[in-house]
Amino acid sequence: MAKRSIGPRTLLYPHPVLIIGTYGPDGRPDAMAAAWGGICSSRPPAVAVSLQKVRQTYENLVERREFTISIPSTDYVREADYFGIVSGRETDKFAATGLTPVKGDRVNAPYVGEFPVVLECRLLQTVEIGMHTQFIGEILDVKVDESVIDADGKPAVEKIRPFIYDSMRQEYYEFGDALAKAFSVGQELKK
Amino acid sequence: MAKRSIGPRTLLYPHPVLIIGTYGPDGRPDAMAAAWGGICSSRPPAVAVSLQKVRQTYENLVERREFTISIPSTDYVREADYFGIVSGRETDKFAATGLTPVKGDRVNAPYVGEFPVVLECRLLQTVEIGMHTQFIGEILDVKVDESVIDADGKPAVEKIRPFIYDSMRQEYYEFGDALAKAFSVGQELKK
Repeated sequence: MAKRSIGPRTLLYPHPVLIIGTYGPDGRPDAMAAAWGGICSSRPPAVAVSLQKVRQTYENLVERREFTISIPSTDYVREADYFGIVSGRETDKFAATGLTPVKGDRVNAPYVGEFPVVLECRLLQTVEIGMHTQFIGEILDVKVDESVIDADGKPAVEKIRPFIYDSMRQEYYEFGDALAKAFSVGQELKK
Repeated sequence: MAKRSIGPRTLLYPHPVLIIGTYGPDGRPDAMAAAWGGICSSRPPAVAVSLQKVRQTYENLVERREFTISIPSTDYVREADYFGIVSGRETDKFAATGLTPVKGDRVNAPYVGEFPVVLECRLLQTVEIGMHTQFIGEILDVKVDESVIDADGKPAVEKIRPFIYDSMRQEYYEFGDALAKAFSVGQELKK
């Protein structure tokens, strides 16, 4: 239990890998990788992602107010990482990766056709926090690949095969084994 | 790539399991589990967690404006789940689990001594989003168990053994194997 202070850091386990899809000023589909984000409300269902102002996606979001979040499978770790390395200002990232921009049904924003889970979002509000701006989007719909849906109609994480970002090591990790049932395993501690 | 719409949902992979530590009105240490959260800014380093107003922790946070986030290892999945099941209004959750509330060095809030990673946070702002209130805290310090630090001075996820929450299945998952280096594996796609 002896602890060492390692100073103020953006450390958390796990971070997600969220691919934010938007249309640019010229209508060109753009996508970037973001790890600073998470669900922020149940009703309305809402998700928060933080971006720096230098990003092309920042401009696109302020202008268009609609976006998607595509969650990559481990098959696309190379492409997901690329979306975080290169700027959409100079590069057509969909063309460079060969991935397919698909226009959302509910929002005017593109998602990555090959990625198994997609959220369609409309901007609710923005929050300024130091060097990042947090965009809070209402989740209007979730789409998942038919191939990742189990017999009970729900997506299975074992078929989606999403991955995790470790900001300390700058490394991606796979999901591991199921550990325990939530809202269940802790019941034994109830007196 | 054929996709099925499953409606608006708070679905994302991965969700974190964040144990929020606060002192109550009577000075009693309290802790609750939250999955709606994530890092939201690099400078200042900041983290966001969303809570419902019915929570004891909501009251504590509004009053005290300081909190900790403890990240449990897989050894404590039972206790972490319990922190999300029971209300601090009726129960002393530290006493019930036998875990140790340790007062932070930088903030007046307790963390879970047995958990390997701890963030000490001071409230920067709150954001109202439907049924949840988002609390944005500046991360003043991060503390990690000496036992999870590698030879290079950085914590190792393999020693921390954090876990993941899957909201669709209400199941916890372990971290799996390292997959690829971030800001590196995607370089091959650069022209």
